[in-house]
Amino acid sequence: MYTKDARIRVRYAETDQMGVVYHGNYYTWFEVGRSEFFNSLGYTYKELEQEGIILPLTESYCEYIKPAKYFDDIIIRTKIIALKGIRITFGYEVIREEDHALLAKGKTTHAFVNKELKPVRIKKVNKKVWELLEKCVN
Amino acid sequence: MYTKDARIRVRYAETDQMGVVYHGNYYTWFEVGRSEFFNSLGYTYKELEQEGIILPLTESYCEYIKPAKYFDDIIIRTKIIALKGIRITFGYEVIREEDHALLAKGKTTHAFVNKELKPVRIKKVNKKVWELLEKCVN
Amino acid sequence: MYTKDARIRVRYAETDQMGVVYHGNYYTWFEVGRSEFFNSLGYTYKELEQEGIILPLTESYCEYIKPAKYFDDIIIRTKIIALKGIRITFGYEVIREEDHALLAKGKTTHAFVNKELKPVRIKKVNKKVWELLEKCVN
Amino acid sequence: MYTKDARIRVRYAETDQMGVVYHGNYYTWFEVGRSEFFNSLGYTYKELEQEGIILPLTESYCEYIKPAKYFDDIIIRTKIIALKGIRITFGYEVIREEDHALLAKGKTTHAFVNKELKPVRIKKVNKKVWELLEKCVN
Repeated sequence: MYTKDARIRVRYAETDQMGVVYHGNYYTWFEVGRSEFFNSLGYTYKELEQEGIILPLTESYCEYIKPAKYFDDIIIRTKIIALKGIRITFGYEVIREEDHALLAKGKTTHAFVNKELKPVRIKKVNKKVWELLEKCVN
Repeated sequence: MYTKDARIRVRYAETDQMGVVYHGNYYTWFEVGRSEFFNSLGYTYKELEQEGIILPLTESYCEYIKPAKYFDDIIIRTKIIALKGIRITFGYEVIREEDHALLAKGKTTHAFVNKELKPVRIKKVNKKVWELLEKCVN
Repeated sequence: MYTKDARIRVRYAETDQMGVVYHGNYYTWFEVGRSEFFNSLGYTYKELEQEGIILPLTESYCEYIKPAKYFDDIIIRTKIIALKGIRITFGYEVIREEDHALLAKGKTTHAFVNKELKPVRIKKVNKKVWELLEKCVN
Repeated sequence: MYTKDARIRVRYAETDQMGVVYHGNYYTWFEVGRSEFFNSLGYTYKELEQEGIILPLTESYCEYIKPAKYFDDIIIRTKIIALKGIRITFGYEVIREEDHALLAKGKTTHAFVNKELKPVRIKKVNKKVWELLEKCVN
């Protein structure tokens, strides 16, 4: 199964008064992972949107294992867990680069929709993208 | 089962280029609901932290049903789903005030820990809070 | 000069590891103040955008006086400082409700532009809004 | 004058329904630039905080020239504009990597304070940092 690593460094803005990264920000990191995943396929999410296909979330989940801290170097590892006619599920691991500790893992499920937010069969409306994604599932 | 409603109005900052609220922000709304839930018990989460007990998340989940939009009036309905010795799970509903449409629902699980992030039995270290919370479970 | 007060309660997400509100979030609060200012005129910023007029910022400034903290009740007081043909400047005060301490003050300048981001004379393209705004300047 | 370039890629979370980066997020980018500036001196802001010196803002300012968009590669160029006994002012340029267009510029002023938020003379309490910073002014 194809995976893609994205890299970020924790921003001060991402911490909260607990002294660690605010839990909601892991979902932004998942999004960074997802954007880089598309990019690595040679077809950015930006292009996909420009062609009128957007990927709103239907579900998101995160398990928090160890806290990320300010200025930590973070790896976000992204893969496709499931791909169906009108849905796609990504899986993520958030890893601290220094010691490769797993800080969090999660997943997000998305619908393929057009600009009017109507579900579309990605296989029909954009076969190229479908094929690129399908190869990553296995 | 006791529930508490919190009210917010969608901020421009919370939208993204899809023209709707960015998915990660629902977790901030859950937190608003949770803060107001504690407040309604006569014991704020702020006080709890000042007494050295914090509630980091171990898991979070959200299901997105309909998108929230800029300037929508939103109700966040919060309840306790489960309360164990060192864990608590909150459930949330995000409701559009105008037509009472359910936009999203979710849950978060938290550990009771001290400032050194060691798990604590809330029943032992703060019986008053334990009793307040237990009454809400049912 | 007409002013409008908006009210918010500080969210945990808005704090950082300094234990106070992250400085960037005051700009979001200014935006909340601005949105409520428009609303109080009987013409929401949402409507303005729907008519094809948007107000991107050309400048923003904030002076930080005392830190806001989690769960503080905050008043955001908004007024119009200047209104020219294609520009508008808002002024803001961020006040802690408990003791009416001034926590921060600032201003933002915006251009009136259409959806293609071309400057428009608001007086010409939407006289009603122009008149509503002009009354607030003095 | 010493300057340091930091690099980021625009996140979807950073956009708003105008289709461009939300204005408040430029201040987070300034913070990223500042963190990397310290890091380039061989003395991270994290270390500075661990030694009990923090740098809360007293003022911030941004001029918006051209909008940044999702997935743009961005350079944040940071320098020290002024360094006094208890204050430091940083200057920033936000540059689009693709065509080196200047998207925004700004500055932030900070006080040197201890954990009790009392102003400290950085020259006295941490001479090494003072010397590192002073060299950058000119």
